[in-house]
Amino acid sequence: MWVNGQAATQLSLLDRGLAYGDGLFETILLQQGKPVWLDAHLGRLQNGCDRLGLHIDRMLLQGEITAFLEQNQHLILPKSQAVLKIMLTRQSGGRGYRAATRLCNRILTLHPAPSDSAHNATHGIKAFLCQFRLAQQPKLAGIKHLNRLEQVLASQEWPDDSYQEGVVLDRADYVIEGTRTNLFAVINQQLLTPGLDQCGVNGIMRQQLLQHFGKQAKVQAFDYHAMLEADEIFVCNSIVGVWPVVSLRLVATHQEFAIGPYARQAQQYFQSVLDHVD
Amino acid sequence: MWVNGQAATQLSLLDRGLAYGDGLFETILLQQGKPVWLDAHLGRLQNGCDRLGLHIDRMLLQGEITAFLEQNQHLILPKSQAVLKIMLTRQSGGRGYRAATRLCNRILTLHPAPSDSAHNATHGIKAFLCQFRLAQQPKLAGIKHLNRLEQVLASQEWPDDSYQEGVVLDRADYVIEGTRTNLFAVINQQLLTPGLDQCGVNGIMRQQLLQHFGKQAKVQAFDYHAMLEADEIFVCNSIVGVWPVVSLRLVATHQEFAIGPYARQAQQYFQSVLDHVD
Repeated sequence: MWVNGQAATQLSLLDRGLAYGDGLFETILLQQGKPVWLDAHLGRLQNGCDRLGLHIDRMLLQGEITAFLEQNQHLILPKSQAVLKIMLTRQSGGRGYRAATRLCNRILTLHPAPSDSAHNATHGIKAFLCQFRLAQQPKLAGIKHLNRLEQVLASQEWPDDSYQEGVVLDRADYVIEGTRTNLFAVINQQLLTPGLDQCGVNGIMRQQLLQHFGKQAKVQAFDYHAMLEADEIFVCNSIVGVWPVVSLRLVATHQEFAIGPYARQAQQYFQSVLDHVD
Repeated sequence: MWVNGQAATQLSLLDRGLAYGDGLFETILLQQGKPVWLDAHLGRLQNGCDRLGLHIDRMLLQGEITAFLEQNQHLILPKSQAVLKIMLTRQSGGRGYRAATRLCNRILTLHPAPSDSAHNATHGIKAFLCQFRLAQQPKLAGIKHLNRLEQVLASQEWPDDSYQEGVVLDRADYVIEGTRTNLFAVINQQLLTPGLDQCGVNGIMRQQLLQHFGKQAKVQAFDYHAMLEADEIFVCNSIVGVWPVVSLRLVATHQEFAIGPYARQAQQYFQSVLDHVD
């Protein structure tokens, strides 16, 4: 683990990332040691910095990432996949909530890739429809900031690990995303994913898939009744790829879905990216 | 600074308080070294723990607070006032957002009391009506959790330190609170403070004042048009006490208010508490 280019395991108790969640993060897949979609992740980070009033020296950060991965090759390379997490936190200082600086601490940590991704991609997952509703906050929507209590609360809901993801709605019962994934559904033969201008995280995998599918996919709101009529549903993020949802647990029942051609196409696209990462 | 009863300056990079803002805090006024309204603060902390699914050993925490204040007497007692901050963060572990433990780290830090409280209490403050709107999230409303980006963003809005506080509304233009205070307004001869079941922090000072004023005060929603018609407005928290608002900056203009009898009565009540803290 590194902080600002130096090996470290801890951060100051006065850091604003800890005090207020005043910061951002990214989790980036390392495929054979190489970061996948690094530019897209750094682009979202930059956008988050602009939104929160943080300054990031992108060249410096990229240099640190390169050095960090090089120095930890012996940990990364024995596995085909690993995860690099970047955290940016606003440095301490300021008068309470009012920030006195745009400067960030740059935190790099290394994590094992989830072991169940491939199995879930092949066989699909059981998902849980959360009762928790996301608040609408356009000023924070889309970016991957450190205020994640909504996701923490939503992911307490399912009873055991037979569920691999929770689906969360907004307060008007519109579908937004999974707790750690974005969601696509095929409704009336149309591939849809919700807009994220009021809540949710605009995932890199979602962005890549929207680009990949082009005019075949549409960003469009749909509520949970419409989702239940879907021909197929899948969730995705840049670490686990694409997981078809084959069963959705509702309050007292559950609904089953087939794994469909869009999910398989999305998975093939992801695999082709992984095969050609440089 | 202490973590779990031991002197420390840092916290693990893997702590969930840092990663997700998965935790709570309290700031408690120390008057002549003695914590003011400690039981009420610990009560709110306990309520927050219940809401977030955290476990806190209150006896252990109280013992640590006593020992921490005793050991730091030489820093605290030369000043008549200081501030004790308690942070509870969920310990690391779990699979992403989904928590694996209810156990907390207990962080105690000491801070100087703000130097401008008495001046602002006497003369009143200039407040700024923020454009930022609070999201409605009943599952997090009222408690003092570590997801405070809304307050960070709102408090970036005013241009300089001639403003001492920002007033924040919800998305329907109802008044909720100050960025770091609760708000009371006297409208049609009635002392009102907004309900906080959808957003906002239920401050200890607010709770104490509602108790003090009894039937004279009402918890009732009012929008910002109604606030502009107020006979008096004041903001409060348990550190700074009661600050009358004598000027409210709107987009292109500002509105002035007189310091009224309710604010003065609230200040007298606060002073009597400080005079008799044991």
